[in-house]
Amino acid sequence: MTDSWPEGNWFIEFGSPDDLAAFRLSNVLAQGRTRFQHYQIIASPILGKALILDGVLQSAARDEVIYHEALVQPVMLTHPLPRQVAVLGGGEGATIREVLRHSGVQEVCMIDLDKELVNLCREFLPEFAAGAWDDPRLRLFYEDGRAWLAGRPDASLDVVILDITDPLEGGPAFFLFTREMFILAQAKLRPGGLLSIQAGSAGQAVRLLPHLYRTLRVVFPQVIPYTAFLPSFNDLYGFVLAGGPELHWPTPERLSRILQDRNIASLKWLLPEFAPALPLLPGYLNTLLTQQGRILTDSNPIHQVESFPINLSPF
Amino acid sequence: MTDSWPEGNWFIEFGSPDDLAAFRLSNVLAQGRTRFQHYQIIASPILGKALILDGVLQSAARDEVIYHEALVQPVMLTHPLPRQVAVLGGGEGATIREVLRHSGVQEVCMIDLDKELVNLCREFLPEFAAGAWDDPRLRLFYEDGRAWLAGRPDASLDVVILDITDPLEGGPAFFLFTREMFILAQAKLRPGGLLSIQAGSAGQAVRLLPHLYRTLRVVFPQVIPYTAFLPSFNDLYGFVLAGGPELHWPTPERLSRILQDRNIASLKWLLPEFAPALPLLPGYLNTLLTQQGRILTDSNPIHQVESFPINLSPF
Amino acid sequence: MTDSWPEGNWFIEFGSPDDLAAFRLSNVLAQGRTRFQHYQIIASPILGKALILDGVLQSAARDEVIYHEALVQPVMLTHPLPRQVAVLGGGEGATIREVLRHSGVQEVCMIDLDKELVNLCREFLPEFAAGAWDDPRLRLFYEDGRAWLAGRPDASLDVVILDITDPLEGGPAFFLFTREMFILAQAKLRPGGLLSIQAGSAGQAVRLLPHLYRTLRVVFPQVIPYTAFLPSFNDLYGFVLAGGPELHWPTPERLSRILQDRNIASLKWLLPEFAPALPLLPGYLNTLLTQQGRILTDSNPIHQVESFPINLSPF
Amino acid sequence: MTDSWPEGNWFIEFGSPDDLAAFRLSNVLAQGRTRFQHYQIIASPILGKALILDGVLQSAARDEVIYHEALVQPVMLTHPLPRQVAVLGGGEGATIREVLRHSGVQEVCMIDLDKELVNLCREFLPEFAAGAWDDPRLRLFYEDGRAWLAGRPDASLDVVILDITDPLEGGPAFFLFTREMFILAQAKLRPGGLLSIQAGSAGQAVRLLPHLYRTLRVVFPQVIPYTAFLPSFNDLYGFVLAGGPELHWPTPERLSRILQDRNIASLKWLLPEFAPALPLLPGYLNTLLTQQGRILTDSNPIHQVESFPINLSPF
Repeated sequence: MTDSWPEGNWFIEFGSPDDLAAFRLSNVLAQGRTRFQHYQIIASPILGKALILDGVLQSAARDEVIYHEALVQPVMLTHPLPRQVAVLGGGEGATIREVLRHSGVQEVCMIDLDKELVNLCREFLPEFAAGAWDDPRLRLFYEDGRAWLAGRPDASLDVVILDITDPLEGGPAFFLFTREMFILAQAKLRPGGLLSIQAGSAGQAVRLLPHLYRTLRVVFPQVIPYTAFLPSFNDLYGFVLAGGPELHWPTPERLSRILQDRNIASLKWLLPEFAPALPLLPGYLNTLLTQQGRILTDSNPIHQVESFPINLSPF
Repeated sequence: MTDSWPEGNWFIEFGSPDDLAAFRLSNVLAQGRTRFQHYQIIASPILGKALILDGVLQSAARDEVIYHEALVQPVMLTHPLPRQVAVLGGGEGATIREVLRHSGVQEVCMIDLDKELVNLCREFLPEFAAGAWDDPRLRLFYEDGRAWLAGRPDASLDVVILDITDPLEGGPAFFLFTREMFILAQAKLRPGGLLSIQAGSAGQAVRLLPHLYRTLRVVFPQVIPYTAFLPSFNDLYGFVLAGGPELHWPTPERLSRILQDRNIASLKWLLPEFAPALPLLPGYLNTLLTQQGRILTDSNPIHQVESFPINLSPF
Repeated sequence: MTDSWPEGNWFIEFGSPDDLAAFRLSNVLAQGRTRFQHYQIIASPILGKALILDGVLQSAARDEVIYHEALVQPVMLTHPLPRQVAVLGGGEGATIREVLRHSGVQEVCMIDLDKELVNLCREFLPEFAAGAWDDPRLRLFYEDGRAWLAGRPDASLDVVILDITDPLEGGPAFFLFTREMFILAQAKLRPGGLLSIQAGSAGQAVRLLPHLYRTLRVVFPQVIPYTAFLPSFNDLYGFVLAGGPELHWPTPERLSRILQDRNIASLKWLLPEFAPALPLLPGYLNTLLTQQGRILTDSNPIHQVESFPINLSPF
Repeated sequence: MTDSWPEGNWFIEFGSPDDLAAFRLSNVLAQGRTRFQHYQIIASPILGKALILDGVLQSAARDEVIYHEALVQPVMLTHPLPRQVAVLGGGEGATIREVLRHSGVQEVCMIDLDKELVNLCREFLPEFAAGAWDDPRLRLFYEDGRAWLAGRPDASLDVVILDITDPLEGGPAFFLFTREMFILAQAKLRPGGLLSIQAGSAGQAVRLLPHLYRTLRVVFPQVIPYTAFLPSFNDLYGFVLAGGPELHWPTPERLSRILQDRNIASLKWLLPEFAPALPLLPGYLNTLLTQQGRILTDSNPIHQVESFPINLSPF
């Protein structure tokens, strides 16, 4: 009734039936249903503009830079010369924005199933792409990412980035997280090629990361999981970098040099000095990754909605 | 009305007037007001048993191990032989639990203003202390921590740990976060002595950390800020280790050896291999720490309730 | 974080998956599970002390007087000389409190399945009964109300009051809302005997009232539905008075005289002048009652969780 | 995360700092700020389309018929021949809709300060007006209602309806609820003319009704307060009908005859048989109206934000 009470419109997201987070809405810019998903583009005093798909927060202006640097910069900076890059998913346009900052890139193919959603992001979230939509190096494909990869010549890509929402019961994303998918991706990579993938929560409710880690290890010689804290998500988030056998996480010195070589003035989150922290995991998460998870396959994809139990008893 | 709806009793904590987190309560074990603060000891499916002071979550069984390892183990493992330890605050008993795991410790003095709260924690949260209350090396003092330090002989402590709730407008904790307080603590440390302090949010709403870092640097030769992700708090949390001039963050090898020497079977969170990640800070936080904050003094203690603005625009 | 934010513990009750009401909790006096139901006895700045069963608010000190006057006083004041009264349910003790205010009452039998709950109410909500538990005219039975009625001699009661929580999927209360049950109750009434029953929402989500009204009409010659606004429930509530054939809703003059005769100083809600309003129903509810609902029987009891649709289009 | 969890966007309205109601939003059709107030036009599964001003729900498609029948029909049906009608406020267009159903009406003047809001209602809530905006008998004025009345010839109106939002601290509506305002309105009424006004909550938090009742009684010979239960508001609402000295609340017979005479097929809420219930008030409210409240004047208008305390202790 008075201005100081937190009434009004709120976005509420449940982490489980027993906990929730809520953000005040200052505006709902667009909402509806595309052929593939329910969407909302909202504005909030805390989040800034944000994209919500099927009731789950995807990206918020407040800190999308962290997520997108974390997904893109390790793989791009580890690769000595990424020229051909494929991004599966990434409708907001911020993943390609980060890729296109690298001066050696000749072509980025972005493959997103949902053309209507991409157009909504272009209209309502243009600052997420920061001009990337108009970059002549970008080619857009509106189709299934796995089918697109299958149709691509072998050994034709330097980097593949999977920016796919967590697979939910019954969704098509299931088949983007299997051994067969990763074998296909590997076949399309040139020698020294790398793959990067977002792996969902590494903190509040770990569901996907141990499975992904285990599955990627049966396909790629080197697999490096790493994490980033995402304030908007109230969570530590997991990512995986895969390739090899010559893959090594870059040193601060190497990162500084590459950033300079590629004319990237600076990153907001991934300081060269900070980079060594990323693949170092707390004990409980390390235990989970080395002892849990199974190989996801087309005939037995992920169907776990329960999160892994974490033992944090002090003794 | 049906079991699947998330109705019932919830604990709601606002991060700001524009965002909140809520946890379903399964029980309220105790609540009331001590001479110093309002308290609740609750149980929740997500948090387990948890302590709430003045409406702010302090510790939850779910992950108090992370917080308490992060506050205690770096300082204890960095010090070559901590025998005399002082803990200011730490009413739940988990801070002294972590201290007492170190076999060389001869005496831990715990100084907490609020005797009634300590007794409530002993009664309702005994598993947080895991027997520490009955350890013959423990001495309990119910008084102001700064006054206790002032009455202590100089050069009589190896480690001082400040486990004090964030200072709120008008509370006595203000004067535990000033230059004069840290000068006093330094005087009580033996050569090679170290101080460790919790510094509040390093993620969602950074209020204290830059001030603390700057203030500690004018007192101690070496000051190392570091972070830990705390799921219950939905946040990255900051801590500071101070001492010097010979203070160096320990290597994994040194940590492994000390853990072995002191008969500490294993830690749940602070794996030796993980430890180097702690003091590495993301770019935006590094910028905040090096460019913001002021020296807190008795005549001008912290009074900032606003959090520091963080610039995460990608360019 | 500050006192003016509405954080803390809240009781949340969903009216449907699409709306909810929440009350700040100042205390949880007791909670747990009896053999029959989950209970909470809470305190709230708005509600005062309140009883919650299976997540649904039952009674709040704030306005239980309205509910209990509405359930009890019409039937007691309409009957010329109620001496033997049976109350089925009514664990809080406020229903018998209202009955026992009538000086001619010789015996009230209260039959409640849940002895543990009754004892909790006696301990934690003594003001709801206002001494009724110790009235020598009270006899308590802890058994199924219908079984108790069946064992009672025919024509031995003047008034039967059903103060039973709404029947939920799978609960035993189903068989207290059927034609067979009402035939049984009628058999136990003396000539001129009356029955009163609470009928759930008559406003927000009408589920029970049309069925009850139709079922009672096939058993009793005269059936009068009426309503009361209950602030704590955010709702208009329905009740039904049944008897006949000589049953007439009392006039204000008759009510004033009876109150005087029976030494009842005054009622808080049921002013004699207000009484004629009770059985007058708004158009949409009148339509629902006369056109909807079916006869509930033992072989086909209520199983409707959906509320009746209400047409309030202006034309 | 799944469809069955009540996450998503919600409208939250606090009744006090200690209680709230929330409705899921299915859409936000428009929101912004006119020169006079903040507005939202939302859609909700429970409310249907609804208008919210300054964070407070004004009207919802679900049951606006109750509110508008309650405000308009008693005054229109009590007056023997209302030809000239003035509506102050009423931006949604539903108040004039109800007035224009009366066949004898020659002219309705609607005076609303907020032209932009009226236009938004015409665009987004056309079903609330049901064509009234295009009725040739309607004249629209965008100015202060009191100033408009002052400029009107004396004894030129049959009915004045005040459909003004509750006066909030510092708003202009203050001076539409004073003795001077009612004296002015009375002067503009022809002999037998009547005034009707909404008076805010008569249940959850009574703030305005006792003051209004007392103030109107020093101006008009006959003043009749009455109530209606409004599901969307979770509340009993108060209204006042004023005129006299020959004013009598109409009987069901008279109402039936007038409805027939004026070709009004039927009302959804105000059945003739139900009408006598309206001015009958429960005891606690009757006590409040006869014992509380003060005369509101231009020099001492309403400034009470606290609600009246209600005593519902049973004895």
